[in-house]
Amino acid sequence: MEIEQLGEIGLIGRIAKKFRVEGQNVTVGEDDCAVIEFAKAQAGSKYLVVTTDTLQESTHLPEGISPFQIGWSAVAVNLSDIAAMGARPYAFTIAMGIPAHTDTAFVDAVVEGIEECASSYGTIVVGGDLTRSKELILTGTCFGFVDKPVRRAGAKVDDLVCVTGSLGRAALGLKIIREGLSVPEKVETVAKKALFQPVPRIREGINLANSELVTSMIDISDGLSLSLAELAKRSNVGFELYEDKVPVLNDGIRSVVPGADLRDLAFFYGGDYELLFTVDANTREEDYTRLQKEVEMTIMGKVVRSEEGIYIKKGANKEEIDIRGYQHFTL
Amino acid sequence: MEIEQLGEIGLIGRIAKKFRVEGQNVTVGEDDCAVIEFAKAQAGSKYLVVTTDTLQESTHLPEGISPFQIGWSAVAVNLSDIAAMGARPYAFTIAMGIPAHTDTAFVDAVVEGIEECASSYGTIVVGGDLTRSKELILTGTCFGFVDKPVRRAGAKVDDLVCVTGSLGRAALGLKIIREGLSVPEKVETVAKKALFQPVPRIREGINLANSELVTSMIDISDGLSLSLAELAKRSNVGFELYEDKVPVLNDGIRSVVPGADLRDLAFFYGGDYELLFTVDANTREEDYTRLQKEVEMTIMGKVVRSEEGIYIKKGANKEEIDIRGYQHFTL
Repeated sequence: MEIEQLGEIGLIGRIAKKFRVEGQNVTVGEDDCAVIEFAKAQAGSKYLVVTTDTLQESTHLPEGISPFQIGWSAVAVNLSDIAAMGARPYAFTIAMGIPAHTDTAFVDAVVEGIEECASSYGTIVVGGDLTRSKELILTGTCFGFVDKPVRRAGAKVDDLVCVTGSLGRAALGLKIIREGLSVPEKVETVAKKALFQPVPRIREGINLANSELVTSMIDISDGLSLSLAELAKRSNVGFELYEDKVPVLNDGIRSVVPGADLRDLAFFYGGDYELLFTVDANTREEDYTRLQKEVEMTIMGKVVRSEEGIYIKKGANKEEIDIRGYQHFTL
Repeated sequence: MEIEQLGEIGLIGRIAKKFRVEGQNVTVGEDDCAVIEFAKAQAGSKYLVVTTDTLQESTHLPEGISPFQIGWSAVAVNLSDIAAMGARPYAFTIAMGIPAHTDTAFVDAVVEGIEECASSYGTIVVGGDLTRSKELILTGTCFGFVDKPVRRAGAKVDDLVCVTGSLGRAALGLKIIREGLSVPEKVETVAKKALFQPVPRIREGINLANSELVTSMIDISDGLSLSLAELAKRSNVGFELYEDKVPVLNDGIRSVVPGADLRDLAFFYGGDYELLFTVDANTREEDYTRLQKEVEMTIMGKVVRSEEGIYIKKGANKEEIDIRGYQHFTL
């Protein structure tokens, strides 16, 4: 059945059933607005954080992504922004623009993806909107709570430059799809999964913020290069990186990619949802060791003065990093 | 200049300048999320309300609407949902999907409309997102605060059925555009203004909620008929209306419309952003009079038992009201 036959009210009813609203401090779906009793929701936190992000068919969706993964991603991109503040996500609204001839099974799978990602990270879907549009377009808005938000501004000279997890898997997926790069099937599966179903670093973000050792943070969904530039601009600093420390494909699939491509994958592709952050230069060894136990992370450079720019250091040589990556209007 | 030449970052910079973020308890535009210190924002209110609504070119935008009015409307439709809870809007996020060849002057005017409507109702634009899309699509998400939210559920038998303001102006505008209805130029201007630049009933909603006399409320943006049906369903009641009490075009432009069309305009068109609400049957005369001084409103019927349905009473006759109006997927 196509959604056009179901009508808006039928479709809303069908979708509303999928979202499990748990907890007693939220009322959803019966009124003009969701109503949240936030003394319980905020649990003592001082700040509310809000972010909004859109996924849209013609620009954002890589070939081969499933409807479930589309829904998952619409939530994950927003959660990643919440993670980058060190915040705890609380509630999520989703506005879906859907072409009239879309099959209801497709919409159901998108909604399952939304619900699965949201509930995986303790986030309640509190509202939504449906419209008929020319292409599939999903706008999520997420809000959460935090006591000590970590900003993009805050990095100081000599702080350590770090990143969670491993870079380049999603980028590799994109390279396989867009450029027809040939890799073993197993690697292709891993790379596409990373691209199609990104993992927002919620737990990592919260642990990093709670440690009080982190001086600045950003997610690298637009690519490491642009994210370094943004962090540098907001903190008014520069970055020195050591290429052999940048964790690219550090999960046993590094060998399938030509060495020259590794930097490309790490720096200039979007799609990785790791956190880029700086750690206070005065951190005691034991505190740093404790943090490393909580969060999978790598030191890959240090903060330098703004005038020095952003570069890779190789022995005595400094090689400036291009500032380019993913921009929606210039693709 | 087309926005494609400007690029996403250029466009964001251009837009960010337009939004005046006032007040010291919000930080916007420098981080992954807006950060709101909500002890100050909530000002003692118990509940947070959240709503999201989309305006999209091919379904929602009437012919002749200006870019400024498009931006205005994207905010107003969301504020109207906040008003219907009796809440005070606080912050707003906007996700804009814009076709690549859109002129920057058009985008600037849309942004001005967003800013103008938001600031007219004390609402801060705290976040946004830009993507390239096949058609213009604007998703707003608004949140606000309220102490005693008014629900759709709550109407009781014998309560008074009321509506703010006057109905049918926006509907008349739509009829002029869609059906080529011919009316005097002055009337056409008034009707189109109502349609293109709707006024959310924020102050009225807050006053109605504060009165503690209102037992249920909804906005009638999808048309009076569908809104009555929704209120009836949530409150498990029926409604008896008196046709000559329904305030249609009560502003001196009633005479230009054939009598038979008046009911049509009041009941079956969307676009009016008035509030439909019920007032406790036990309200004392002086309390009701005080409320009427604060809010322009009309009693147009009473709440009856659910089994009686929704009907217009004319002498001894009951005429059932069709439940139809504006549904995005069935147009």
